[in-house]
Amino acid sequence: MKFISIGEILARFSPQNFEKIVQADSYNLHFGGAEVNVAVSLANLGVDTSVFSVVPKNTLADASLRYLKSHGVDTKHIKRGGERLGLYYLEEGTSIRPSEAVYDRKYSSISQVDSNSIDFIEILKEYQWLHISGITPALSENCRILTEKALKAAKSLNLMVSFDPNFRSKLWDFETARDVLSRYMQYVDVLVGIEPIHLKDGNGKELKEGLSMNPNFDTMDYIFKKLNEKYNFKVIARTVREMHSSSNNSLKAFLHVNGQTFDSKKIKFDIVDRVGGGDAFTSGLIYALMEHFEPQKTVDFATASSAIKHTIRGDANITSREEIERLLGSGFEIKR
Amino acid sequence: MKFISIGEILARFSPQNFEKIVQADSYNLHFGGAEVNVAVSLANLGVDTSVFSVVPKNTLADASLRYLKSHGVDTKHIKRGGERLGLYYLEEGTSIRPSEAVYDRKYSSISQVDSNSIDFIEILKEYQWLHISGITPALSENCRILTEKALKAAKSLNLMVSFDPNFRSKLWDFETARDVLSRYMQYVDVLVGIEPIHLKDGNGKELKEGLSMNPNFDTMDYIFKKLNEKYNFKVIARTVREMHSSSNNSLKAFLHVNGQTFDSKKIKFDIVDRVGGGDAFTSGLIYALMEHFEPQKTVDFATASSAIKHTIRGDANITSREEIERLLGSGFEIKR
Amino acid sequence: MKFISIGEILARFSPQNFEKIVQADSYNLHFGGAEVNVAVSLANLGVDTSVFSVVPKNTLADASLRYLKSHGVDTKHIKRGGERLGLYYLEEGTSIRPSEAVYDRKYSSISQVDSNSIDFIEILKEYQWLHISGITPALSENCRILTEKALKAAKSLNLMVSFDPNFRSKLWDFETARDVLSRYMQYVDVLVGIEPIHLKDGNGKELKEGLSMNPNFDTMDYIFKKLNEKYNFKVIARTVREMHSSSNNSLKAFLHVNGQTFDSKKIKFDIVDRVGGGDAFTSGLIYALMEHFEPQKTVDFATASSAIKHTIRGDANITSREEIERLLGSGFEIKR
Amino acid sequence: MKFISIGEILARFSPQNFEKIVQADSYNLHFGGAEVNVAVSLANLGVDTSVFSVVPKNTLADASLRYLKSHGVDTKHIKRGGERLGLYYLEEGTSIRPSEAVYDRKYSSISQVDSNSIDFIEILKEYQWLHISGITPALSENCRILTEKALKAAKSLNLMVSFDPNFRSKLWDFETARDVLSRYMQYVDVLVGIEPIHLKDGNGKELKEGLSMNPNFDTMDYIFKKLNEKYNFKVIARTVREMHSSSNNSLKAFLHVNGQTFDSKKIKFDIVDRVGGGDAFTSGLIYALMEHFEPQKTVDFATASSAIKHTIRGDANITSREEIERLLGSGFEIKR
Amino acid sequence: MKFISIGEILARFSPQNFEKIVQADSYNLHFGGAEVNVAVSLANLGVDTSVFSVVPKNTLADASLRYLKSHGVDTKHIKRGGERLGLYYLEEGTSIRPSEAVYDRKYSSISQVDSNSIDFIEILKEYQWLHISGITPALSENCRILTEKALKAAKSLNLMVSFDPNFRSKLWDFETARDVLSRYMQYVDVLVGIEPIHLKDGNGKELKEGLSMNPNFDTMDYIFKKLNEKYNFKVIARTVREMHSSSNNSLKAFLHVNGQTFDSKKIKFDIVDRVGGGDAFTSGLIYALMEHFEPQKTVDFATASSAIKHTIRGDANITSREEIERLLGSGFEIKR
Amino acid sequence: MKFISIGEILARFSPQNFEKIVQADSYNLHFGGAEVNVAVSLANLGVDTSVFSVVPKNTLADASLRYLKSHGVDTKHIKRGGERLGLYYLEEGTSIRPSEAVYDRKYSSISQVDSNSIDFIEILKEYQWLHISGITPALSENCRILTEKALKAAKSLNLMVSFDPNFRSKLWDFETARDVLSRYMQYVDVLVGIEPIHLKDGNGKELKEGLSMNPNFDTMDYIFKKLNEKYNFKVIARTVREMHSSSNNSLKAFLHVNGQTFDSKKIKFDIVDRVGGGDAFTSGLIYALMEHFEPQKTVDFATASSAIKHTIRGDANITSREEIERLLGSGFEIKR
Repeated sequence: MKFISIGEILARFSPQNFEKIVQADSYNLHFGGAEVNVAVSLANLGVDTSVFSVVPKNTLADASLRYLKSHGVDTKHIKRGGERLGLYYLEEGTSIRPSEAVYDRKYSSISQVDSNSIDFIEILKEYQWLHISGITPALSENCRILTEKALKAAKSLNLMVSFDPNFRSKLWDFETARDVLSRYMQYVDVLVGIEPIHLKDGNGKELKEGLSMNPNFDTMDYIFKKLNEKYNFKVIARTVREMHSSSNNSLKAFLHVNGQTFDSKKIKFDIVDRVGGGDAFTSGLIYALMEHFEPQKTVDFATASSAIKHTIRGDANITSREEIERLLGSGFEIKR
Repeated sequence: MKFISIGEILARFSPQNFEKIVQADSYNLHFGGAEVNVAVSLANLGVDTSVFSVVPKNTLADASLRYLKSHGVDTKHIKRGGERLGLYYLEEGTSIRPSEAVYDRKYSSISQVDSNSIDFIEILKEYQWLHISGITPALSENCRILTEKALKAAKSLNLMVSFDPNFRSKLWDFETARDVLSRYMQYVDVLVGIEPIHLKDGNGKELKEGLSMNPNFDTMDYIFKKLNEKYNFKVIARTVREMHSSSNNSLKAFLHVNGQTFDSKKIKFDIVDRVGGGDAFTSGLIYALMEHFEPQKTVDFATASSAIKHTIRGDANITSREEIERLLGSGFEIKR
Repeated sequence: MKFISIGEILARFSPQNFEKIVQADSYNLHFGGAEVNVAVSLANLGVDTSVFSVVPKNTLADASLRYLKSHGVDTKHIKRGGERLGLYYLEEGTSIRPSEAVYDRKYSSISQVDSNSIDFIEILKEYQWLHISGITPALSENCRILTEKALKAAKSLNLMVSFDPNFRSKLWDFETARDVLSRYMQYVDVLVGIEPIHLKDGNGKELKEGLSMNPNFDTMDYIFKKLNEKYNFKVIARTVREMHSSSNNSLKAFLHVNGQTFDSKKIKFDIVDRVGGGDAFTSGLIYALMEHFEPQKTVDFATASSAIKHTIRGDANITSREEIERLLGSGFEIKR
Repeated sequence: MKFISIGEILARFSPQNFEKIVQADSYNLHFGGAEVNVAVSLANLGVDTSVFSVVPKNTLADASLRYLKSHGVDTKHIKRGGERLGLYYLEEGTSIRPSEAVYDRKYSSISQVDSNSIDFIEILKEYQWLHISGITPALSENCRILTEKALKAAKSLNLMVSFDPNFRSKLWDFETARDVLSRYMQYVDVLVGIEPIHLKDGNGKELKEGLSMNPNFDTMDYIFKKLNEKYNFKVIARTVREMHSSSNNSLKAFLHVNGQTFDSKKIKFDIVDRVGGGDAFTSGLIYALMEHFEPQKTVDFATASSAIKHTIRGDANITSREEIERLLGSGFEIKR
Repeated sequence: MKFISIGEILARFSPQNFEKIVQADSYNLHFGGAEVNVAVSLANLGVDTSVFSVVPKNTLADASLRYLKSHGVDTKHIKRGGERLGLYYLEEGTSIRPSEAVYDRKYSSISQVDSNSIDFIEILKEYQWLHISGITPALSENCRILTEKALKAAKSLNLMVSFDPNFRSKLWDFETARDVLSRYMQYVDVLVGIEPIHLKDGNGKELKEGLSMNPNFDTMDYIFKKLNEKYNFKVIARTVREMHSSSNNSLKAFLHVNGQTFDSKKIKFDIVDRVGGGDAFTSGLIYALMEHFEPQKTVDFATASSAIKHTIRGDANITSREEIERLLGSGFEIKR
Repeated sequence: MKFISIGEILARFSPQNFEKIVQADSYNLHFGGAEVNVAVSLANLGVDTSVFSVVPKNTLADASLRYLKSHGVDTKHIKRGGERLGLYYLEEGTSIRPSEAVYDRKYSSISQVDSNSIDFIEILKEYQWLHISGITPALSENCRILTEKALKAAKSLNLMVSFDPNFRSKLWDFETARDVLSRYMQYVDVLVGIEPIHLKDGNGKELKEGLSMNPNFDTMDYIFKKLNEKYNFKVIARTVREMHSSSNNSLKAFLHVNGQTFDSKKIKFDIVDRVGGGDAFTSGLIYALMEHFEPQKTVDFATASSAIKHTIRGDANITSREEIERLLGSGFEIKR
């Protein structure tokens, strides 16, 4: 099954050694972006993957392509042009100090691209799975059109479509996001995360309003069923994260498939690099679905994939299937 | 309200990556010193601050001044002269291994300065708040005279005077410290920390003797009241630290103001850099007092200021008021 | 004499250890910008300096202000606002491999600022010297208006005005630059560098056309005199650089003052950091003029100031007057 | 009491900053090897120590000898020759991600050495204590012969002999290891760790089979007594490790001496460097036995020695007796 | 034109900051190998390239494949198996101190491979150019057979075959190398470097004996013609290196094509990383031949390709055609 | 022949990457001291060496002893006590920027030692060669007495005594140095360097006054003969250094032995680490004299020893005899 994702390649500059931005003079550079992370993580699981994006003609963008290629991600659909590579500065938090992102991604190449210049039928026809996140339409009006065109093309070609709403309050407001993203849901087979998707009851009241950050099984089962009534997804999944501190979290997940809800075991972990944790859940989920794992194994595998990502530097989960499965079986001794 | 502190600028050399001194060949350099840390932390909260100190005429001392200036601390009252900048080597502990300081601060410029050459009335007249700690008089006989002169001048100019006794057993013995510091208490408005200040009952017995490291509210209330009977402070505050390990502590604080005692919530945290944790409590306290926070918010703000400092590299709390308040409200997600 | 410069604060990200951008994953961050460099370098020579600029409200911009303050540069005239801090990626060349800059400075805060919101009379009135470079008007139409307003205000307040044309081909074309910059010359007292300023003979032919990169004394004397006939500068200076390789250059300079031309001795040097080399010439020149050095010492001092900058990491010449003068007298032994 | 150990000097290359091997381009190098670690740790406790080994004639091997000498370990019995220094790549795990070792130690100099060329009587005669581990015979057939010859020589010279079975599944299989190592037990006085030593009941069933990873006191007492019935050791000791995660463990130990069993207090700790943790137990034990500590102090001291090692970079426990004893008394404040 | 090379992937560990191996504790890791370097360098020039090799199944070998893929080199013909990845430690010299390599490549996977398991017809059929060097047959008898089989298959498929004799005295002796390599010459179209190939006159005397390290044009012309008489190459090329120091060299080259000899201009350069300098000559040469450059441009381009490699960290020349051509036109100013 | 030197162990803190002290926040630590460097360098040549010194009882001093032991230097005569380890900050210059040392060595343990507590007869009796430099008596009056006592003891025991006057203007003035050091000359066999030793003609005029920094052979021959007339040395040697820049020097040397003068070839080199360059000349000279090299080889070997040291990080020449001899034969190719 060949996979493609569509999204922005982002450069991340992080001060070294947990320094604050205001005091740092050396930075690590990582490449990522939500959809890119899913592709790279899937490639590490052995899936044939590709990314569609737009990056400028400069050496920093060249470096981002080298990163993708090093993981075996096909870059042939990445267009070169526009003015700049989106970037952000990430001050990595630890303990009681939260991480803080300074965005500098406006005017990026993909946000300015004219979607008329892109023939998504031509691009997508050799793939069986498309993944997009809600960050792409948040970038610009151009990107909203581009996202919709891509989703429609995918549907017409019968690709499996997964979508992670991924709301970013620094990019757009919640109301707009909800309206735009909900419109896309008709093209989506696999929904990863449930916010900010419209789910109104008969009186126009949002059913998810007031939902606990840590909902119980019955509540999630109820919400999933309501979502499916409305949008008719094949699969819905979401994670629930407890943040004991910036560097210690617990994660569990819920999965809804064939009318049934499953929940994973909860995993607690210290954090080496928080970025891409959610994307590693998505990649684990897509992989499990591609491999037709049982639902229980699917939700456990996706959760373990996410958990282990938090212990790895960089945005992507460069972990093999064997390593993820070993975590499910646990055991922390040095292998020697 | 313009603030000045008086104290030694110390260079700290720490092995990188938690190496032991006996094995290290690369070191990080940080500048600090208890009173300097309070000034730099206050400057980061937006207070107009200055430091009085004495440093030699060499480029290492120049670097220490650059550090102060980078945070907006006024250096115009820092005298140049003497033989050396005080320094210490700090082996940073972690987990069950404690940190260890090798002092090399003897013969430092400030310890040798002739206090007759300093006109504290002239220096202090443009400030409204003076802070000193018990480390300064511990440095040398010269510094004891200097401290007393400064306190008297401050009093005569009607400055608010805060004092942190900060006992250091490698610099002087407990008895001497207690006698000297207790004599200064007549000039002090805000006392931060209660040891090693004399507090005898009618029989000449020290009331604080045998006081638990983790006293309860009533005990602290009693001690505070007794201290105030004797010394008539405006404010007394102290922290109580539980050391679960060298890299994980809990902190809470008690505050006595207007005859009433308040205690903060307890904050537990992992430690990135332990140095300056106490000074960040002091800076948080002074800021809260300057801003006329309510007593409960004052003690919580000062405790949060101290806690968050432990997650920041360097001696000072380079954290904004907003970030400290956010910690009080908690939430550890990446801001993006 | 109080000095102010107007210009953009730029962040520079450079791969560590001479790596190429395409292979780098750790970067050093330096702050600079042509006019900023002149201010910081002058501050290191002991001059009271200030910078006017516009930077966004984020922590990276905070860091840039900390940099200025650490050198004692006054930041009170730096406005906060706009979308982004201009930045560039610098691949540092060495030997036969040239350095390469990837600009990402479009849409920076200063380039978007509305010059109507700035009262330059109010800002400049406490200074005696204004410095601007040709990079500022190259940033945007807004900045061209801003530059002209600043120059006019300076003139009306009788400030000494120095100007470095500093042509950047990645920002605008030569013809536009020449037209715009030449118009500013009426406000300029000290011109540093002679391109791309109009200098036509009677037939409208550019006299500097075809001028050797390494002109002799008589040619420079002739050009200077012609320039002065037309623009009536107080001082003209320029450097001539021979590039033996990316890491080894020679530098000499010519100075025209009171109708007379002087040339410096030539200095050959290996390069640690090329950026800011020209700005260090300017700062050396301005300092020498402020201190009323003799013309020969002026041109030698400015040249040595530039040469020594090439051996220092960062954009600015953090070298004292004594160190520059020692270079003129030479001697390379360790001082111990 | 002069101590000598026999074993392989191993080079360990570990990616920096917890990177995975697949992404790393800079590595830290540490020297070690189980028996070497015991010698270096004992030297740090003040014992006169030596190592017998074989390393090739190249500069990497020279570096390994410099390491030994820096700790005062005598290297005069280290032979030079053979083809290569054994090495391994260690991907350091953290949190829920386990460490992983890639061995590249085949064909190492010691594994190829002809034991006929070695006169162990001559070598061992000036020592009172010999230590070997089960890794040495696991390296090659040559090394099995060498180990046996050394043990016999030690016995004939009346040295105290300690042995750590140290089973490594990547080097040999459990059955072979058990057979070979059990044969050596007749020469052993102090056994550190009980697997994979034969301990059959009358029916030929292994008594240790099915033994809990976390056995209780009575079970250990029973096993120790049975072992002593069979092999007649002077001392048996073993640690029990609970792995809460790759970076947080608890450790306790059991000791059997003079027919009596003792257990240590349990110590929980975060891990800076896991390698050599077991060897630091052995060195602590040997030191305590050499110093004739009481049994309870012996087992506590050895356990604390192991625990503190986990907080130190490198393979050996470069901790003084005072520091280990301080841990037993606890207290995590900076010493200043 | 699709290119494939056959050879060993080598890991190189170099102490950081020009430290000697005897004192280093941190190392940089680079992947290379003569034939691999040619492939990676060609890929950076835009050629479709592949490598045939054998590497073990471990994560260090995985990392080597990631390196190849990051440059777009196809790794589908790289077999997994055998015991170890060949490696060496490189102490980088500088100035008057030479570099020194400690080889540890014996028993590497490719050296042990059974060439009967490889179907070179099947592998090579989709390529038009094969490159091998004399290092491969130096590794083992197996590799000599493998090399010959590959050369024969290439010939039968009509591939262009280039060969770099690349004599390594630490791997085999000169006489053996000369005999083995000379036998291969019948399959070679492009010879890069002329030693240690047999070239006897009528009396059996080696014509190249006593040849100056710095031969003049006529001598080279004569040797080239004699070589062609004997072996009938399409192209012969060689470089001549003058070593002014370990960190400063000059390079020029001679090319013989269509019966005519050409020599390049000489380029002098400082050295950042010496490894792969020769391979970058080969890649430049092959690229020029593929692109049908004129002979003079061919030899200049190849020489510039080699020269610029010496300024780049890592084994391969990650330089574009434009950058190489720019060097031929020179100019060392920052491009901004 | 067993060697001992007497002197101060100095810690050197240098900013990394050629940063200036005023901007650095990470430092490398090296241990050295002129006499220590000679001992360590000789140990690397295979000589049995020891150092007499006094260092405080702290972990930084422990680290300095580990450094000595790692090179095989015997530390049994190093006394523990006093207040501090002498140290200095070295800003490493490059190109036209000179290095600059900030001394902080006052009150060091050795400078305060009471020489009555030392029995030099007891210490020196097992050695055949003693080396001291003029830095030791420059430290304090105590050290002057100590130096004289040591020299007398050595003489009485018939040791070969070498002395390097090593004038340091930051420690004492030239006149005092000359008077004190000249008095020691009666005990000296081998003088290394000729300043600031008294050499007056009949009229009391200093013969060396006005001597060129780059004297010719005849001048040196004359001076040497005059020195020998007065002091009756066995050997006199001195180097002549030309400083083309802070990072490029040339070195040659003159040797006087048995009434004859010899000069070495001149070696030009780039500098990685300048410190200890002179001490490596001394160690090369002493080694050559111990090995009874011919005079010409002696002076060439000592000069090469010094030259190669400049390419090695750290204070000592960790170079083997073979490597030094290879430099004399030259050749800069990688050994592989």
